[in-house]
Amino acid sequence: MTARVSVAVLGATGAVGQTFVRLLDRHPYFRIAEVGASPRSVGRSYREAATWREGELSDEIGELQVRACDPGAIRSRIVFSALDAEAALDVERCFAESGAIVLSNAKSYRMEPDVPLVIPEVNPGHLALLELQRERRGWSGGIVTNANCAVTVVAMALAPLHERFGVSTVFATTLQALSGAGYPGVSALDASSNIVPHIGGEEEKIEEELGKLLGTVGSDGAAHAGMVVSAHANRVPVVHGHTACLSVGFETEPSVEEVRAVLAEWRGAEVSRGLPTSPPDVSVLRAEADRPQPRRDADTGSGMSLVIGRVRPDPVLDVRLVAMAHNTVRGAAGGSVLNAEVMGRLGLLPDVEEGSW
Amino acid sequence: MTARVSVAVLGATGAVGQTFVRLLDRHPYFRIAEVGASPRSVGRSYREAATWREGELSDEIGELQVRACDPGAIRSRIVFSALDAEAALDVERCFAESGAIVLSNAKSYRMEPDVPLVIPEVNPGHLALLELQRERRGWSGGIVTNANCAVTVVAMALAPLHERFGVSTVFATTLQALSGAGYPGVSALDASSNIVPHIGGEEEKIEEELGKLLGTVGSDGAAHAGMVVSAHANRVPVVHGHTACLSVGFETEPSVEEVRAVLAEWRGAEVSRGLPTSPPDVSVLRAEADRPQPRRDADTGSGMSLVIGRVRPDPVLDVRLVAMAHNTVRGAAGGSVLNAEVMGRLGLLPDVEEGSW
Amino acid sequence: MTARVSVAVLGATGAVGQTFVRLLDRHPYFRIAEVGASPRSVGRSYREAATWREGELSDEIGELQVRACDPGAIRSRIVFSALDAEAALDVERCFAESGAIVLSNAKSYRMEPDVPLVIPEVNPGHLALLELQRERRGWSGGIVTNANCAVTVVAMALAPLHERFGVSTVFATTLQALSGAGYPGVSALDASSNIVPHIGGEEEKIEEELGKLLGTVGSDGAAHAGMVVSAHANRVPVVHGHTACLSVGFETEPSVEEVRAVLAEWRGAEVSRGLPTSPPDVSVLRAEADRPQPRRDADTGSGMSLVIGRVRPDPVLDVRLVAMAHNTVRGAAGGSVLNAEVMGRLGLLPDVEEGSW
Amino acid sequence: MTARVSVAVLGATGAVGQTFVRLLDRHPYFRIAEVGASPRSVGRSYREAATWREGELSDEIGELQVRACDPGAIRSRIVFSALDAEAALDVERCFAESGAIVLSNAKSYRMEPDVPLVIPEVNPGHLALLELQRERRGWSGGIVTNANCAVTVVAMALAPLHERFGVSTVFATTLQALSGAGYPGVSALDASSNIVPHIGGEEEKIEEELGKLLGTVGSDGAAHAGMVVSAHANRVPVVHGHTACLSVGFETEPSVEEVRAVLAEWRGAEVSRGLPTSPPDVSVLRAEADRPQPRRDADTGSGMSLVIGRVRPDPVLDVRLVAMAHNTVRGAAGGSVLNAEVMGRLGLLPDVEEGSW
Repeated sequence: MTARVSVAVLGATGAVGQTFVRLLDRHPYFRIAEVGASPRSVGRSYREAATWREGELSDEIGELQVRACDPGAIRSRIVFSALDAEAALDVERCFAESGAIVLSNAKSYRMEPDVPLVIPEVNPGHLALLELQRERRGWSGGIVTNANCAVTVVAMALAPLHERFGVSTVFATTLQALSGAGYPGVSALDASSNIVPHIGGEEEKIEEELGKLLGTVGSDGAAHAGMVVSAHANRVPVVHGHTACLSVGFETEPSVEEVRAVLAEWRGAEVSRGLPTSPPDVSVLRAEADRPQPRRDADTGSGMSLVIGRVRPDPVLDVRLVAMAHNTVRGAAGGSVLNAEVMGRLGLLPDVEEGSW
Repeated sequence: MTARVSVAVLGATGAVGQTFVRLLDRHPYFRIAEVGASPRSVGRSYREAATWREGELSDEIGELQVRACDPGAIRSRIVFSALDAEAALDVERCFAESGAIVLSNAKSYRMEPDVPLVIPEVNPGHLALLELQRERRGWSGGIVTNANCAVTVVAMALAPLHERFGVSTVFATTLQALSGAGYPGVSALDASSNIVPHIGGEEEKIEEELGKLLGTVGSDGAAHAGMVVSAHANRVPVVHGHTACLSVGFETEPSVEEVRAVLAEWRGAEVSRGLPTSPPDVSVLRAEADRPQPRRDADTGSGMSLVIGRVRPDPVLDVRLVAMAHNTVRGAAGGSVLNAEVMGRLGLLPDVEEGSW
Repeated sequence: MTARVSVAVLGATGAVGQTFVRLLDRHPYFRIAEVGASPRSVGRSYREAATWREGELSDEIGELQVRACDPGAIRSRIVFSALDAEAALDVERCFAESGAIVLSNAKSYRMEPDVPLVIPEVNPGHLALLELQRERRGWSGGIVTNANCAVTVVAMALAPLHERFGVSTVFATTLQALSGAGYPGVSALDASSNIVPHIGGEEEKIEEELGKLLGTVGSDGAAHAGMVVSAHANRVPVVHGHTACLSVGFETEPSVEEVRAVLAEWRGAEVSRGLPTSPPDVSVLRAEADRPQPRRDADTGSGMSLVIGRVRPDPVLDVRLVAMAHNTVRGAAGGSVLNAEVMGRLGLLPDVEEGSW
Repeated sequence: MTARVSVAVLGATGAVGQTFVRLLDRHPYFRIAEVGASPRSVGRSYREAATWREGELSDEIGELQVRACDPGAIRSRIVFSALDAEAALDVERCFAESGAIVLSNAKSYRMEPDVPLVIPEVNPGHLALLELQRERRGWSGGIVTNANCAVTVVAMALAPLHERFGVSTVFATTLQALSGAGYPGVSALDASSNIVPHIGGEEEKIEEELGKLLGTVGSDGAAHAGMVVSAHANRVPVVHGHTACLSVGFETEPSVEEVRAVLAEWRGAEVSRGLPTSPPDVSVLRAEADRPQPRRDADTGSGMSLVIGRVRPDPVLDVRLVAMAHNTVRGAAGGSVLNAEVMGRLGLLPDVEEGSW
């Protein structure tokens, strides 16, 4: 094995930041060289500053000294960002200007036409936007974003169907896990034996990001796919795993069997396969009437697989189904790590030779 | 106050049966004279046979001796049935033949064209089917059914809108409480930090019963309203309160404000108002972004109110909203008790003079 | 009915403060004239400032303008305090100096020898300390505290036993509800399918406050009862209701039957009976093997009853039992309201004539 | 690697049975050759009969045909039994008579003086009872039992302390997970936001089995250690992981530091180390004030480690602490598998040569 490439994690003490650290600790290609967090953590050891809640942590990383989130303090040229949206706006731009590739989990740049919004199995071709981004913005580095955690579930379920049958209309009701709100996040008094039928900004993200993810890329940037999407977002008392109940209308009118076959065969874009964070099965189609279930299925493929079930006819549109995936792994940190792995393979990462992975 | 009318509860030891008993204990018009249950309970005291789980129980009822569920053993002419569907088919027929009015919570007769499926605020006029029922079946009594617990939520939310704007299309995703499955019902291992995206037969009930409830009654029986309905039913870890996320298309195209105004003003059919089990407000429209919530709102109006929130435009159809009600009160036993109260007021109950309530 | 006496609630927007407001809204003797909260709420309407989470709120109170928590802004001479311990130290003293009676839920003054720590059914005689308090401190008003929520459960269960048999040793393991930590309080990620075996400072409070509550009052102040107490405090995923598993050693050696009889007969101090907030039964002894249970039993007596079960021999000490009560009602706001009612009856409240209630 | 030894699992479709199968699937020494279950499953494939709920299942095992639980149908000479107590009494005896070694999770034979009740790290020497058992009963095989799931937690925490300081008195309050009751087990309506302060027979098991586990073995069989134990058992809404709050009195009077040191150093009996199911650390002593927590810590050491925290002085006895372990792995199936591995190493298993592991 060749030497691992140094990377940094920004916002490393928060919930998504800790998941980044857990996934990158002992990663075969990347080595966490630096961790960044807010001023009150700077200078403390990572273990102490983070109040670590993710299982075991290697001493190598636990003893890293937390740095400020700016390119003066953090020198890695590959940077994973778990910053919140407000902080991300400036900080990620600074890193991109200074030549770093930022793999961002924040929403700040997702909908910019020259910023790739990428799920590696779905639309790795959108990484071509990096060139436009650099040209337009004069950056020597760049920003690549992953999708919102709930959109990730919907987009992965619909991507192979859109390719084959053309998705025109989507009703998506999401039942989203507590960990999606970070830590401390949701109050236990709001979550106990309760549903909160509202997550600020989430429905808009589902409705907007889906079109970009399933759309095409041209010289002007990303062009959205034309499907119309109606979303209902709910917070449910589940620790990990976002569930989406989907009713879907297609341009052609596939049978339920055709839809099931496409979902069963889907393996994701070839470039996304066989990487350290790729799951053995991108999508697992369950035959049981009562699956997927988040507590039992969210860890499928180490949290990187999409699990689908209940594919059946829809009385109004064409097909109904249920899709579920792990929101902090597949839908957040794991998605960004896989984005980085694909970029390395494609020669889009500093210090990584094309095709070496 | 005049003497209370004697009634019986069938299936009195089960979950819905216990809710019937709790609601009828100290009722101003009805007095539980008899309780019926399965053979293994017959002859035991009710308190002992029921393993009572509903708070306080008066000694008068706790000491009733459980009887067999047949018209030989139970002589009340007003009978509330919490029997399961299989048992209900024969038992309810026997009681109706023998002259009793059966207020049933079972699904067995709900979709028969000559059997009233009634939510008192929505379609009390369907009680006219009783005449056709007696004529066709030669019964001296009759069967009146309440709606499925999830349909009740959907139908109450849509009834005033259908009357004004004509509902044509409905997407309904339900998040249904544990108590809807009875006791012991759902295993704690299925419910803990989990979603089960399937409830056997529930989606079909939602899709079928809604049309009957919102339809008209003619000389041939009930005629269904023509809306098309797509339902996703989920079991969620909530004790009481079914939540429904609804996207609705109308024949006319009302504005969101018009929809909100109709929902805010709705008081239910006049004949349903001011009865002992009528809530002060049939429908409560919440302005907060994050309501209704089942744990906090299911007891509104002693569990008989519908609580609505998040009325907003739908990108595909016309309007989206969230509706919630207490599933074992409003959606089961309480619905049947209110049916009986309305029938008494209309002179449709044995031993009760029209207009005396 | 005579005119209601004006009272104020300090810290009215927090979790315990909201419970105070709910219990005092429509109280027959008290009328909330003023509500106090932190500077960021001052000047706003109470409804708006509180983000009300306790069911219905009368407009009369909802429209009160929030005031600053100082005797210049709040003129009521009866003041209920839901302040946190840090704020309470100064603010409660200021009110007591200025002539108000402060009924406090904070721990700040509980262990002072000249401050009554009172559960009305257990030790109303401790109110005599008020005189010593005024003398020593030169206050014209005074401070009366209720007990910690977990201690309340233990002390109520042991009070009648201590009186009869002399409690010498106590092992108490508590399973404490989420609402005991206030709002937002515990993170849903800490509470979901989890136990947190630690609540800061709680074990010390249980061990110390119990002796004072069951002790005597002399000219020098409160003298502690001599029992030795070992406590384990746990946070459990329950909304309301603290459960305590108790093993108890006595000076005499009563039989389990004698213990059961004393618990069954206990009605609390006579002066505490028949007041608006007194429960019909101070203590409810359940015969079932699996009660008390917090979700099913915490509302017994409108949340003011203690519920006891499983009285059985202890292999090491004398007797084991389980006790449970509603922590935010009996163990917090409700306890203080009952303290005030008893004080009014005894002529210890400003503007209330002795014996008028 | 040498050929794996064939084993059978009895009661293989139930909750503990499925955990046995999961732990033995791909085991380096054992190969599941046969699965036994109740008559209604016999003849069906294991996958179909079990309604598998434990993650992935190899096809090799999923396609095994379920057999009847008798030595005529099942020929393996090493048999893991997840039978319930009633069935176990006869079935396990039959297998032992017929020459098989039965590794039992049932309580039926645990307290027999000639039946080893073994936790491998604690009392592997008790396996010597097998000889007495064969002699007395005339069996050619034998029965070896694991401990009750809650006792396992208590006994592992106390074993090293008993060896050094002599445990004389124990107060143990357990907070036991839902999976301990099997599937479907506890009703979700009993578990939601609730505590059930009773588990039938559990307190007696804790009080009795502990003395046998920590006792000695002589020519007459097992002699109990003399400590006195008082237990309170509670069912709590946690999926996996039994927590025990312990107050302990010792014959000598060790300091808290001495107790902590012994717990930190404990590695378990040497014969139990380095086997496939042995955890890297038998006992993990956490320094944080709020650990162990079942949801976060139950999987430590793949569910085989004991996790301890909050070691502190006890006001009545000597020391208090909190101990927690995974109840269906460490406290049930995993414990029996480790028993078998130790027996293999000691030459006590049919077809396995001493010292070959």
